[in-house]
Amino acid sequence: MDSLIAFDHIIINANLATFSAQYGFDINNDNQNKITAYGQLENAAIGIKGGKIAWIGAHTQIKPHLTHYQNQQITDADGHWVTPGLIDCHTHIVYGGNRSNEFEARLHGANYQDIAAQGGGIVSTVRSTRSASSDELFAQSEKRLLALIKEGVTSIEIKSGYGLDLDTERKMLTVARKLGKKHNIHVSTTYLAAHALPPEYKDRADDYIEQVCEWLPILHSEGLIDAVDGFCENIAFTAEQIKRVFEVACSLGLPVKLHSEQLSNIGASALVAEYKGLSSDHLEHLVEDDIKKMAASNTVAVLLPGAFYTLRDTKLPPIAALRQHQVPMAVSTDCNPGTSPLTSLLLAMNMGCTLFYMTPEEVLAGATTHAAKALGLSHKGRIEIGYDADLALWDITRPADLAYQMGLNPIEGIMIKGQWR
Amino acid sequence: MDSLIAFDHIIINANLATFSAQYGFDINNDNQNKITAYGQLENAAIGIKGGKIAWIGAHTQIKPHLTHYQNQQITDADGHWVTPGLIDCHTHIVYGGNRSNEFEARLHGANYQDIAAQGGGIVSTVRSTRSASSDELFAQSEKRLLALIKEGVTSIEIKSGYGLDLDTERKMLTVARKLGKKHNIHVSTTYLAAHALPPEYKDRADDYIEQVCEWLPILHSEGLIDAVDGFCENIAFTAEQIKRVFEVACSLGLPVKLHSEQLSNIGASALVAEYKGLSSDHLEHLVEDDIKKMAASNTVAVLLPGAFYTLRDTKLPPIAALRQHQVPMAVSTDCNPGTSPLTSLLLAMNMGCTLFYMTPEEVLAGATTHAAKALGLSHKGRIEIGYDADLALWDITRPADLAYQMGLNPIEGIMIKGQWR
Repeated sequence: MDSLIAFDHIIINANLATFSAQYGFDINNDNQNKITAYGQLENAAIGIKGGKIAWIGAHTQIKPHLTHYQNQQITDADGHWVTPGLIDCHTHIVYGGNRSNEFEARLHGANYQDIAAQGGGIVSTVRSTRSASSDELFAQSEKRLLALIKEGVTSIEIKSGYGLDLDTERKMLTVARKLGKKHNIHVSTTYLAAHALPPEYKDRADDYIEQVCEWLPILHSEGLIDAVDGFCENIAFTAEQIKRVFEVACSLGLPVKLHSEQLSNIGASALVAEYKGLSSDHLEHLVEDDIKKMAASNTVAVLLPGAFYTLRDTKLPPIAALRQHQVPMAVSTDCNPGTSPLTSLLLAMNMGCTLFYMTPEEVLAGATTHAAKALGLSHKGRIEIGYDADLALWDITRPADLAYQMGLNPIEGIMIKGQWR
Repeated sequence: MDSLIAFDHIIINANLATFSAQYGFDINNDNQNKITAYGQLENAAIGIKGGKIAWIGAHTQIKPHLTHYQNQQITDADGHWVTPGLIDCHTHIVYGGNRSNEFEARLHGANYQDIAAQGGGIVSTVRSTRSASSDELFAQSEKRLLALIKEGVTSIEIKSGYGLDLDTERKMLTVARKLGKKHNIHVSTTYLAAHALPPEYKDRADDYIEQVCEWLPILHSEGLIDAVDGFCENIAFTAEQIKRVFEVACSLGLPVKLHSEQLSNIGASALVAEYKGLSSDHLEHLVEDDIKKMAASNTVAVLLPGAFYTLRDTKLPPIAALRQHQVPMAVSTDCNPGTSPLTSLLLAMNMGCTLFYMTPEEVLAGATTHAAKALGLSHKGRIEIGYDADLALWDITRPADLAYQMGLNPIEGIMIKGQWR
C-alpha cells in the first residue's frame, strides 16, 4: 500500500461521475436503467498527487490506511457526489458595458431595426469594449467569471470579437489570460475577430477579413491565441471569407471552430469539418449531411440553449441525429451581452434538458468530457488516472440534480489541479 | 434638521427604484421613455428608524449632516441601486425528497403515465414529505430558502399541500414558520390541503374536501395559517369543492387565493374574485370576462413562468389584457419539485420578460409591490415612508439589469426591518 500512502490528498466516501470509459461511460448509451450512466462509481475514493488524479478505487480499499494521512490531506465527501470540474467551452465573457437597455427597449416594443438605428446591437458592445480601459474590462468580466467559478467551472473558453481592431482584440485576449492567471483556472483563448463587420469597414467585408488575417499571426506571436473562431452566417461572414481566416490559422498550427447554422445553413459546419475543427457551435439549422462530416472529422457539436432561449428560437438543433451519428455534444453558456446574458453553466444544462430534450447525463457530459474535447484539452473533463485533478464536490443525491434544479447552487468544493479553492 | 439626525441608519448616495406612486410609479405607465419608471429617484438617500423607512430625499439634503452619524450608521451605496427587498409570493419550498429521477426518466422517454405507475408524480413528494422528520424537512427546505434570500428575497409565501393529512400539513406549516423565525424574514403561510387527492381518498374527493374543511380551523387555531389556497383544475378539484373550503376560510376571516387556469378554465378566477381573493395564480387559460372580475375584486394576477418553462407550455397568460384592465401582476418562482424546481426569483423575472414579454419594470414590480399586495402585506414592497425597511442593494447600472442577467447575482446587501443581514 506504499503507493496509496504517497498521495498529496485523498477524497474519501464519495460517489463519482467519472465520464470515463473505464467506468462504463459510453456516449452511445441511452438506456435509463444502465448502471454505468455518467461512468458512475459509488462509495469510491480518489488519490491525488502532483495535481493529477493518481488513483481511483473503492472507499473500503483506502479506509484501513487513513491513519497514514494528516487530517488536512483528507476530504470526506460524506456520500456526496464528485464530478469533473465543469468546463464552459464557448463564452464571450470579456466585454464592456451591457445591453439591458436594449433588452428593456425591445420589451417596450422597439424592434431590432429601431435599436440598430440608435447605435445599439453588437456595435454598442464594440464601442463600450473599445473605450474601456484594460482594468475596467478586467473588473467587469471578472464578475461574470466568478459567477461561473462559484458553480463549479474550472476551465473556460473566452473569445475576443468585440474589439474588431488590433488593439482591442489584443486587450480582450490579454484580459482573458489575466483572468485565468489571477483565479488559477484554465482559460482557452479564442481569436474571434471575424465576429462582425466593424462600422469603419461598412460594405468592405473582404477588406476587413484581410485585416483579420493580418492580425492573427501578430497576436499569436504574442501568445494570446489558443484557437480561431468566426461567425459564418448571412448577417456576418461567408464560408469563403471564413476559409481565408482558417487558412492562416492552419498555417500557424492553430485549431479552428465556428459559429455555425444558428440562423441558416451557409456551409459552416461543412467548412469546420473540412479543417478538422475542434467544434461547430449553435447548430439549430444543421443538416444530416453535415453531421456525417462532423462525425468523420471528430468535431464536437457545441449546443447553446441560452441563446436559443433568449432569442425565443423554435428551431431545435438536430439532437437525435447527432446522437445517432455519435457526434459528442457539449453544452455551454455562450455568455454574451446580446443573445445570452447567462453566467450559469448549471442553468445552461437545465436548458439543454428542458429546451433541447437532452438527458441529464448528456448535458453533464456536455459540460465536462465533451467540453474538454471541444477545447482540445486531452487531460481534463474526466475523473481518470493521469487527468488533472480539477473536480467539483456537490451536495446532491444524484447527478441529475445538477440539471434538474434551477438557481440552487449545490457546490461544496472546487478543486483545481489538486488544490481546493 | 433634528429629525434627520434621529435616524438609526441612513443609506446615502443611492439610486432608488421605489415603486411608490409618490415618486411616479404607475401600473398603467407603459412608456419606455418615462422618467418615473420604477418610481425611480436618483442620487437619493433613505433614513431608517425603528425598522421603518422614515425619510426619503436627495443625497445632497443629507450630505451636510453626515458628521452627526457614526460610521456604522451610514451605508454609502456608491451610486448603486436600492430596491424594495424581493417578495416571492407563491412557493412550495417545504417538501421532502426531490423528483430529479422523474425529470431524468422523462428525458429518457418515460411518459407521465409510466412515472405515475411507478409511484411517481406528486404522490412521491407526498410520501417523502410524510416520512421526513420535522428536522429533515427543515434542513432540506432551508437550502431552498437560503438560495432565495441570497438573491434579495426578504419575504416569502410558503404553502402546505404535500401532506394531505392533518399531521403532515401541520408539520409543513410549522417548518415554514420556523424558517422565517430562524432567518428573520417574513413568511406568509398558506394552507393548501386542497392541492391533490391523497391516494387513501381515491375516488372520494368530496370526502377528502370535508377533511380539508375540518383541518382548517384546527391549524388556524394553532396560528399556522395566514391564507387559504386550492388547486382548481380538471386534474385536481372542482370550483364547487374549492368553494366549500373558501366558505370555511371566510368564516375564519382568512383571505383566499387559488391555483387557477393553468391547464384549463373551470371557473377558478371567477371563484376567487367572488371571494375577493388576494390572488389568482398561473392563469395561462384565463379569459377576459374573468380578468374584469379580478379587476373589480382587486385580485392580483400571480404569474409563474418557471412552471410554464419547465412544462414547455406554449399557451401564454393574457398579459396584454391584464395590463389593459390594470390588474396588478406579480411574478413568483412557484418553487416546487415537480413543475418548477426554481429557487431564483431573479430568474423568474427574466422568464417573465423572455417568455411572457413582460417589461423589466413589470417583473420587478411583480416581485416587490404587487407581490406584497398578493400577500396582503400593506407595508412591504415599496420604498415609501412608513413602510418596512426591507431593502436590497444591487451592484447594477440600471434596474433592468436584474431581469436581463441570468445567473449573475449582483446583490450587495440585504436589509430586513432596518438591519443589514
